Amino acid sequence: MPTVPLVADAEAAHEVRQVFDDIRATRKTDFVNNFWRALAVHPPTLKRTWESVKQVMAPGALDPLMKEMLYIAVSATNGCGYCVHSHTASARARGMTDAMLGELLAVVGMANETNKLAETLQVPVDEAFLAPAMPAKPGGVGQKAKRPR
Amino acid sequence: MPTVPLVADAEAAHEVRQVFDDIRATRKTDFVNNFWRALAVHPPTLKRTWESVKQVMAPGALDPLMKEMLYIAVSATNGCGYCVHSHTASARARGMTDAMLGELLAVVGMANETNKLAETLQVPVDEAFLAPAMPAKPGGVGQKAKRPR
Amino acid sequence: MPTVPLVADAEAAHEVRQVFDDIRATRKTDFVNNFWRALAVHPPTLKRTWESVKQVMAPGALDPLMKEMLYIAVSATNGCGYCVHSHTASARARGMTDAMLGELLAVVGMANETNKLAETLQVPVDEAFLAPAMPAKPGGVGQKAKRPR
Amino acid sequence: MPTVPLVADAEAAHEVRQVFDDIRATRKTDFVNNFWRALAVHPPTLKRTWESVKQVMAPGALDPLMKEMLYIAVSATNGCGYCVHSHTASARARGMTDAMLGELLAVVGMANETNKLAETLQVPVDEAFLAPAMPAKPGGVGQKAKRPR
Amino acid sequence: MPTVPLVADAEAAHEVRQVFDDIRATRKTDFVNNFWRALAVHPPTLKRTWESVKQVMAPGALDPLMKEMLYIAVSATNGCGYCVHSHTASARARGMTDAMLGELLAVVGMANETNKLAETLQVPVDEAFLAPAMPAKPGGVGQKAKRPR
Amino acid sequence: MPTVPLVADAEAAHEVRQVFDDIRATRKTDFVNNFWRALAVHPPTLKRTWESVKQVMAPGALDPLMKEMLYIAVSATNGCGYCVHSHTASARARGMTDAMLGELLAVVGMANETNKLAETLQVPVDEAFLAPAMPAKPGGVGQKAKRPR
Repeated sequence: MPTVPLVADAEAAHEVRQVFDDIRATRKTDFVNNFWRALAVHPPTLKRTWESVKQVMAPGALDPLMKEMLYIAVSATNGCGYCVHSHTASARARGMTDAMLGELLAVVGMANETNKLAETLQVPVDEAFLAPAMPAKPGGVGQKAKRPR
Repeated sequence: MPTVPLVADAEAAHEVRQVFDDIRATRKTDFVNNFWRALAVHPPTLKRTWESVKQVMAPGALDPLMKEMLYIAVSATNGCGYCVHSHTASARARGMTDAMLGELLAVVGMANETNKLAETLQVPVDEAFLAPAMPAKPGGVGQKAKRPR
Repeated sequence: MPTVPLVADAEAAHEVRQVFDDIRATRKTDFVNNFWRALAVHPPTLKRTWESVKQVMAPGALDPLMKEMLYIAVSATNGCGYCVHSHTASARARGMTDAMLGELLAVVGMANETNKLAETLQVPVDEAFLAPAMPAKPGGVGQKAKRPR
Repeated sequence: MPTVPLVADAEAAHEVRQVFDDIRATRKTDFVNNFWRALAVHPPTLKRTWESVKQVMAPGALDPLMKEMLYIAVSATNGCGYCVHSHTASARARGMTDAMLGELLAVVGMANETNKLAETLQVPVDEAFLAPAMPAKPGGVGQKAKRPR
Repeated sequence: MPTVPLVADAEAAHEVRQVFDDIRATRKTDFVNNFWRALAVHPPTLKRTWESVKQVMAPGALDPLMKEMLYIAVSATNGCGYCVHSHTASARARGMTDAMLGELLAVVGMANETNKLAETLQVPVDEAFLAPAMPAKPGGVGQKAKRPR
Repeated sequence: MPTVPLVADAEAAHEVRQVFDDIRATRKTDFVNNFWRALAVHPPTLKRTWESVKQVMAPGALDPLMKEMLYIAVSATNGCGYCVHSHTASARARGMTDAMLGELLAVVGMANETNKLAETLQVPVDEAFLAPAMPAKPGGVGQKAKRPR
């Protein structure tokens, strides 16, 4: 149950309707899912969030399917049921097979296991993992960053 | 600072040394990072965890670079500093460019933002997201699963 | 579905009933919500938790509405559905408007996004952020705290 | 230690420099903190994130100090050290006293305690908490949302 | 609602059926819970996870009831509803009383409260907590670990 | 680095000094760790938190060592470095061996793995896990709780 009413098309204010229309045009579907209908409680946040999602999820150095799988990994780690459902549906629509979901599952599970082992043991970062990120740059800000955090 | 001593090669018990040797052989490097040296406090967990990681991170339906990027996404969401460092190093070694890291960043950030918006609003899952996961299977367990959770 | 039975007034032991009565008196309502009815499985925890909540949520340097909004921010970040529902109801009862909820949403979403960007990048704390917290105090404990953690 | 080099002014590309300049102008200070210098690894994410933060943190239905305190609450719940440091500094600069920090501490601690009690007990949401969010609207989307999630 | 169909016995592939049979034999019950039926979407992950759980939850230096209670503590902290339900049922089956659950509740709640207080304050680790973990071992790896992280 | 100064004995206000003295008397040691010295920024929270910890961690249906191990499990899951260090030290002082820590590690890691698998799959709770918690009680509150959440 949502904590706010979900906004139907007929009740949408002009600025909300414009976002809904852009979602439909961008995704080439008439379907606007509940996340956007709930977010419509605050039109500026609806608009800013949609613009960001549209920019972030567009094809680039990573393809859209990989981005959806990263989204599932984050959502599962956060335990966000709605998000797991919506992004699993999107990933399947973009071609995620059961075998791919299975390996995603395996990595997400294993990463969470080893993350917590590392936390229980408070493992110090190896020098080898630090080096490549800090190119020699005399006088640069990177230099100062070498002090331990 | 770790909560247990890190095991050096010279102090490693036989079963620990065997795991260290397999890490070296599998990764084709002499370097054994601190995570495994700390985990050596409990040899059965060291061995089981390494065997699992080796199986999970091998190439399959997803390629190793994609798996490393999923690992970073989970580690960043969990706030595990050690894990972010070690898997960022692994991902770079497998070819992750700054542009790919940049888009990974963008997706991880955006997913965490929208996850929390969905939680604040308690958005109900759309029917459309449920349908594909539940193929008609008369008498099957899937059927029972249709009751609301 | 709870993992323990919810305690109705008629079944409440004396010490549980006393807490329920104090909740009613403090909040000036006959309604005792499910959280307290579930917590009644362990009367000492019920009593200690209620006493703490009563003290913490009372007006002070921060007003009660601001405290409820902080509670929502934590609950959304933790993904606790029950808690989001109960504290959203409390915040609305104390005057939270849709515009205020909208901005709360925006801050919670943005904070979660930038938190994860900071974790992915393992950003070192700026000197400027450390200074004000550490007044010069020769020989004091604060001094020792200057070593890096 | 960051996983990417921190970009100094002298090394900043034009689009990065423009964001740094806007940060300086908006905040009326010459100081650009490490978060933005790290994020500069991916200029589009730097720009989009800064534009969002600028919009979200501006005064509105909630005042800037309250927004900073909400930011601290989220950051502490996520365990993001950098974020706690930077937003505590910002909140102090906007007038947060020790008494206000103390009550913020108390609410954040208590909210995390009761969140986890609610999760351990899997407390069902009270009917009373659902009602206000769902105004009667025949045929609207809100109606459908009444099915249990 | 699951994101994958739950596999009934009649639909189980040979390798899945073998795991189900081992679950039944190990637990001395005919009941195979939904977690394993969902995980059957990826037989290698089903098999690896079951083998790990069987090994980890077997009696050892800690008894099985204590292990179940640790499982509940983690699951409640993660907010995993399914996991809280299944491990509360297992703990009760192994003898957890209401008084034990009550004290578990109290510790989980208190730990989450103080964890977040420590994060808000960014408390530095006391020297006294570091000493015992780092036995003097000249030339060993432990030595290097003494640098601050 | 803490976000507040750590209060040394010489600077402690009377009410702070009283709590420090009670910590020393209760724990039979002169050592007062940094957590309490930081929390002293807000004396009411210092006092309330110490009184709660003292009550919760006292022997009862669970022994103090088991409580410390539950504390570690929560702290590792939250990724709270300070908390992992302080409670690992306490657990060792109460007799936790390397073998016990090893099995604790294994359970915490495995619980986090399976928690995230359950979240990725959104596994519905089995009827069998619900039954024992809901004793037939005609007219009781438990009855109402049977509606799906």
